[in-house]
Amino acid sequence: MNTRFKACGLITLTTDFGTRDPFVGVMKGMILRHHPLAKIIDLTHEILPHWPAEAGFWLARTSEFFPMGSVHVAVVDPGVGTTREIALLETSEHMYLAPDNGLLGAVAARNLDARLWRVSNTALQTLGLAKPSATFHGRDIFAPLAAELASGRFVAEELGVPLQSLIPCWIEAPQITYDRVSGIVITIDHFGNLITNIEAASIEFWKDPLIFVGSAQLSLRRTYRDADPGECLALINSFGVVEIAVSEGRASEVLGLSRGAPVIIRDAVRRF
Amino acid sequence: MNTRFKACGLITLTTDFGTRDPFVGVMKGMILRHHPLAKIIDLTHEILPHWPAEAGFWLARTSEFFPMGSVHVAVVDPGVGTTREIALLETSEHMYLAPDNGLLGAVAARNLDARLWRVSNTALQTLGLAKPSATFHGRDIFAPLAAELASGRFVAEELGVPLQSLIPCWIEAPQITYDRVSGIVITIDHFGNLITNIEAASIEFWKDPLIFVGSAQLSLRRTYRDADPGECLALINSFGVVEIAVSEGRASEVLGLSRGAPVIIRDAVRRF
Amino acid sequence: MNTRFKACGLITLTTDFGTRDPFVGVMKGMILRHHPLAKIIDLTHEILPHWPAEAGFWLARTSEFFPMGSVHVAVVDPGVGTTREIALLETSEHMYLAPDNGLLGAVAARNLDARLWRVSNTALQTLGLAKPSATFHGRDIFAPLAAELASGRFVAEELGVPLQSLIPCWIEAPQITYDRVSGIVITIDHFGNLITNIEAASIEFWKDPLIFVGSAQLSLRRTYRDADPGECLALINSFGVVEIAVSEGRASEVLGLSRGAPVIIRDAVRRF
Repeated sequence: MNTRFKACGLITLTTDFGTRDPFVGVMKGMILRHHPLAKIIDLTHEILPHWPAEAGFWLARTSEFFPMGSVHVAVVDPGVGTTREIALLETSEHMYLAPDNGLLGAVAARNLDARLWRVSNTALQTLGLAKPSATFHGRDIFAPLAAELASGRFVAEELGVPLQSLIPCWIEAPQITYDRVSGIVITIDHFGNLITNIEAASIEFWKDPLIFVGSAQLSLRRTYRDADPGECLALINSFGVVEIAVSEGRASEVLGLSRGAPVIIRDAVRRF
Repeated sequence: MNTRFKACGLITLTTDFGTRDPFVGVMKGMILRHHPLAKIIDLTHEILPHWPAEAGFWLARTSEFFPMGSVHVAVVDPGVGTTREIALLETSEHMYLAPDNGLLGAVAARNLDARLWRVSNTALQTLGLAKPSATFHGRDIFAPLAAELASGRFVAEELGVPLQSLIPCWIEAPQITYDRVSGIVITIDHFGNLITNIEAASIEFWKDPLIFVGSAQLSLRRTYRDADPGECLALINSFGVVEIAVSEGRASEVLGLSRGAPVIIRDAVRRF
Repeated sequence: MNTRFKACGLITLTTDFGTRDPFVGVMKGMILRHHPLAKIIDLTHEILPHWPAEAGFWLARTSEFFPMGSVHVAVVDPGVGTTREIALLETSEHMYLAPDNGLLGAVAARNLDARLWRVSNTALQTLGLAKPSATFHGRDIFAPLAAELASGRFVAEELGVPLQSLIPCWIEAPQITYDRVSGIVITIDHFGNLITNIEAASIEFWKDPLIFVGSAQLSLRRTYRDADPGECLALINSFGVVEIAVSEGRASEVLGLSRGAPVIIRDAVRRF
C-alpha cells in the first residue's frame, strides 16, 4: 500500500440495534461530542441480532459507494462485556472499526493488503474510554473512537497494536471448483430477495449456470423483469453477488427459505 | 415562471426500499461522493413497493415544508432496467427527479407552470453514468444526478431534453361534480389513519359534507378529539386532504380498508 | 444555576410518529427552513403512541450523551389541537421542548434546578406560528421553535412565561423504602429487554437485591452473558436503571410482559 488512509469526516454506522430505541441516536450524540463536524450515515441497523457475518458482508460490498476517507463502524457484538478485542482494518481508501469477532472477515478477504490492528488499552485510557458500561460499547467506545479517527486527530497506529490476522468469519467462504460453487443465503432484503455470498466472478466464464436453492432449480437472468410474474429467478445483483428473486413476489416466502440456506451452482454445459 | 430554481444543497429521498437494508445508505454515500456538502433528509422509504402514485402524492403535499432550492428524488421504479425514461420537473422553488412512470403526476397537477425534462443519454454519458447496474438505478443514476443538481454545478437544461408532458399517474384524479366528489385512499399512516387524495378545496363551500367509505357514513370534524373514543370520523388533515380516522383507534383496522379503497363525498344539504 | 444554556446548533427529535410516513422528514424540512445550519439527530420515533412517559424517560436518560447546547424536542401529543400548553425546560447544558402533558416530568425530576417556561402566544405570533394546523403541531410549532432556539436567535425568556412547575408525569415515580423499591416496565427494547424506571442508585447499597417481575424472581447480574442461554436475569443497564433480560432470548416474550408491568425489588439480606 503506497497511499495511506486520510479521513474525510464521514462515518457510517452498521448495527443490530434496530431503530425503535434511542441506541443509535445516542451513538450519534457521542460522535458529535467528540467531533462536532462529523457527517454520519446509517448503513443498516437491522442486522440479524448477533450475526456478525451479515454486517461484514454488507461492509465488504458497500464501502466502494462511499467517499474515500470514510470510517465504517459496525457493532454486532454478542461478546460485549467479555474479553473480545476491538479491531481496526485500514485500506488506503477506508477504515473499518468493529469487534474482533469475525465481523470483518469478508472485508479482509476482499482487501488482502489491508493493515490490521487491535485497539490497545493504552489508547482507550488516553482517550478516557477505559471504563465503559458493561453492555453498550457502541456508545462508550466505538462511537468516540470513530469520531477520533474521522476527525483526523488520531491515525490507526496511534490507537492500535499491529495484528497479523483477525478472528475469522463464522461463515465459511463459498467453496469453488471448476464446475460447482456452493455458498449460502447471507441476507434477505426488504423485497424478500435472497442475497447469497456467491460472487459473480466465480461463475463468470460459465456458459449456462444452474442454481439449486431449496426445491428450485433456476437459470440466470439479467433483471427482475426477465421472468413471468410469480416465477422464480436468479440474477447477479447490483452488489456483484448471486441473488434469488421472484418476479413481483417474495422469494423468501415462495421458497420458504431464510438466512443460512445453502445455494449450489453447477455449470450445466459441463455437467449435464 | 419568472424566477428560476436555485439549488440550496438539500436533497430529500423518497423510495420503496424500506430501511432494513443498506440501499438508502448507499444512495447517500453516492450523493456525498458527488457533493460532499449536500444535506440529505429522508422523506419516506416505506412507499408500497411498486406503487409510484403514493410517492407522488407525498411529494406534491410536502415540498412546501422544505427550503426553497431543494432537490426531491423519488425512486419507486418497477421498470428499472427496462427502457423507461428519467424525468425532471422544475418549479421556481423545487426540483423533482424520478422515473417517468406516473410518479410525478400529482406534482405536475399542482404545478401547471412547471418545466418538464427527460434526462438525456448525452448527460448520463457526460457524467459517467451511462453504464448503471441492471437493478439499482437509485444508486447508480438518481443519487449522482441529484447531487449534481443540488450542488448547482448543473441546471436542468444541461441534463435534459424538454418535454411537453410526463407519463400520467396510474391513479385517476378525483372526479368532482357540484354535489359529489369521488377519490380513493392513497396511503395509510402509522396511526392507521386512511389518507385520501380528495382535496379540502373541492368541498370548501359545502355546508354539510357526508363521507362514504367502506360501510361507514361520516360527517366532517376538526380534530381527532372531536369524536368519542372508538368513533370513526373524517377531517381535513394537516396536508389539506380528507382523512378518515378513529378516535384513539386505527381506522384501517376498524373499517377493514386499505390503499385504493374508494371514498365518496356528497353534499347533504343539496342531496338529502 | 450559574451558567446559562448556549445553543450549539444540534436538535434531537423524539416522537410517536413512526418512520413509515413523511411526518418526521417534514419536521426536519421546517427546521432547516428556519435554521439551514441545524444538525438533526433522531432519538426515537417509536414511542408508544400517546404515552408521553416513555419519551420523558428516554430524554432524561440520554441527553448526557449529546453535546452541551443541544435542543431536545419531543412530540407525543394526544392533546394536539386542544388547549394544552407548550413547555420549555432549560438546564445549563440542555434545552427541552415538549407539550406540557407530563412528558417532561422525568427530566424535571433529574434536574431540580432547571428553569421552566410556558411558550407564550405572543412569541408564537412574533414568529408567525399562531395559526397552526389542528393536527400537526410538530411541524407547525415545535420544529420552528426548536430551530429558533438552536440557532441562538432566541433564548427561553424571549419565548416563554416562567412557570413554577410542569404538569406531572402520568406515571408515578418508583416508591422507595429501606428494603423495597417498586417501579414499572417503562419501555421494551429491540432485543425484547424490559427496561424499568428503577434507578441503580435506589438499590446501590443493598447486598442481595431480589427482583420480582411477573412470575419470576431474579438476582442481579453484571452482563447478559452472566446467565445460561434462555435464563432470565436482571442487571443495571447502560442507562443506569434496572433491566430484565433473557440471555440470548427475548424477556418480553419469555415473561409475557409489556409496558406498565410492575417490578418490585426487595433486599434479600434484610428480608429473608
